Amino acid sequence: MIVVKAGGNGSLNMEAVCADVASLVQQGEQVVLVHGGSHETNVVSEKLGHPPRFVTSASGHSSRYTDRETLEIFAMVVAGRINKLLVERLQRLGVNAIGLSGLDGRLLEAKHKPALRIVEDGKQKILRGECSGIIERVNAGLLSTLLAAGYVPVVAPLAISHESQALNVDGDRVAAAIGTALKADKVIILSNVPGLLRDFPDESTLIAHIPLAQAQDHLDRYAQGRMKRKMLGAVEALQDGVEQVIIGDGRVAQPLQWALAGHGTVIG
Amino acid sequence: MIVVKAGGNGSLNMEAVCADVASLVQQGEQVVLVHGGSHETNVVSEKLGHPPRFVTSASGHSSRYTDRETLEIFAMVVAGRINKLLVERLQRLGVNAIGLSGLDGRLLEAKHKPALRIVEDGKQKILRGECSGIIERVNAGLLSTLLAAGYVPVVAPLAISHESQALNVDGDRVAAAIGTALKADKVIILSNVPGLLRDFPDESTLIAHIPLAQAQDHLDRYAQGRMKRKMLGAVEALQDGVEQVIIGDGRVAQPLQWALAGHGTVIG
Repeated sequence: MIVVKAGGNGSLNMEAVCADVASLVQQGEQVVLVHGGSHETNVVSEKLGHPPRFVTSASGHSSRYTDRETLEIFAMVVAGRINKLLVERLQRLGVNAIGLSGLDGRLLEAKHKPALRIVEDGKQKILRGECSGIIERVNAGLLSTLLAAGYVPVVAPLAISHESQALNVDGDRVAAAIGTALKADKVIILSNVPGLLRDFPDESTLIAHIPLAQAQDHLDRYAQGRMKRKMLGAVEALQDGVEQVIIGDGRVAQPLQWALAGHGTVIG
Repeated sequence: MIVVKAGGNGSLNMEAVCADVASLVQQGEQVVLVHGGSHETNVVSEKLGHPPRFVTSASGHSSRYTDRETLEIFAMVVAGRINKLLVERLQRLGVNAIGLSGLDGRLLEAKHKPALRIVEDGKQKILRGECSGIIERVNAGLLSTLLAAGYVPVVAPLAISHESQALNVDGDRVAAAIGTALKADKVIILSNVPGLLRDFPDESTLIAHIPLAQAQDHLDRYAQGRMKRKMLGAVEALQDGVEQVIIGDGRVAQPLQWALAGHGTVIG
C-alpha cells in the first residue's frame, strides 16, 4: 500500500500524478491520494473579499491564520473543487476514486488549536478564533473498507475536532497519519523541489538517502519552510511503522514512478 | 429506510432537519440525506464574477445554464461548503455522517445532456456546453456498505457521466433515484410550501393525499415551477418500488417528524 501526498502550492503536475496513480492501481497496488489546496484557497479568498492573513508564530514560522470564514472557504475549495475535480480526472483514467475529507465518517480526528501565539510589530500576542488542529486519530476502518471494495480514497486535508468542529490540517501530516494508520509500505510526499536539499535552493545538493536515526537531525539542520512539515511528517510516519518515506519531485513527467525508482530523498 | 431531500433554495430550516435526522438515527432508522445548493451557488457565482444564467427551454421552463465554469463553482459550493457543513452539524449531533457527491465511487451515473434547446428573443436556439444530466444508475452497493457500517450518507447533487464528466443533477430526482435503488420505505422531499397546492400559492388548498394512480395527473394539473420536479421524482420513485413519498414543509420546527406524522402531500 502506498500513500501519496501531492498538490497544494499550485506548481505540481497533477495530471501526471493522476496518470501514475492509475498505473499503480492497474498493477494491483492499493493507493490513497492526499491533496492540498492552499494556493487555490488564497486565490478564491481574495476574489471573495476575505484575503488570506499570514502571521509569524512566536517560534518564527510563517503560517496562515484560519478564522471560521477562511475555514469555510478552505472547505469549499479543497473538499469541493480540488477534491471533486481530482476524482473526476481519476475516474476518467479508469480509477474508481472516492473523495473524502477528514470530517466524513470522522476520518481524521484532531486536537483543536484554538489560538495562535504570534509576533506582530515586535510584540507577542495571542490570536484567537483559529480553526486548525493536529491529527490524533485516523478512522482506518473506513479507509480499509473502501480499499477492500476496490475504491481509491482521495483525501482533502480537513479534520474534525474532538468537539466536532471542522478544522484545517496540514496535508503532509495527513499523509503521514494515514500511512501510519494503514501500516503503508511507502509514503510518497511530492514537492516542488527534488527532495531535501543540503543547501536550499541549490538542487545539486539533494540528499538522496537518510537513515531513520538521522532524520530528526536532518530536519533540524536542513529543512526550510514547507520542507520542515514534510520532514516532520516523514519522521512521525517512520517512527510509527511506515517502512519508507520518499520526498519526491512533483514537477517531473512521471512523479510517482520517478520517486519509486529511488529519485528524491528516501528516508528510512 | 428513509431518504430525505432538503435544501437548495435557501429558505429551509436545515438545523431542524439535522436534529430530526439525528432523532431518526437514534431510533435505529437508516437515513440518507440529499441536499441542494442552487441558491448559495448563485450567491458565490455572483461574487466570483460569473453570474448565473437562466434560460427558457423550448418547452417553456426556466432553467439554469450550467457551463463548465458554473459546474466547477457548483461543485465547490455544493460538495465543499454545504455538504461539509452539514456533515459537521450532524457529527455534532452524534450522527456519523459521511459526505459524498455523485462523482465519488460513481455513486450517481448520469446521461449527459450536452445542449439545451432554448427560446431567446422569440427564437429557438441550441445552447451548447451544458454540464447537466439525467441519472441512469445508482451505486447502491456503496451506500449499502456505508449504511451497514453505521454511517449516514449525505449526498450532494453532482453526478458523473458515462464518459466520466462531472454533471449537475436535480436534487429531488437524486433523492428519488436513491430511494428507488435502496428500495426505501419512504422518500421525504421537503419544500418551502406545505406540499402540493391545488391553487398555488394558497396554502389552504393543500392536497393531503394522492393515490399513485392519480400522481401523474396531479403533476400535470397542479404542479408549478420547482414542484414539477418534486412530483416527477415522486412518480418515478413510486413506480420503481418506493412505498410512499411525502412532500413536506421544510420551514416548520420538526420538518421530518411533521412529514412522518402525515402532514404534507402523501403520495402512494
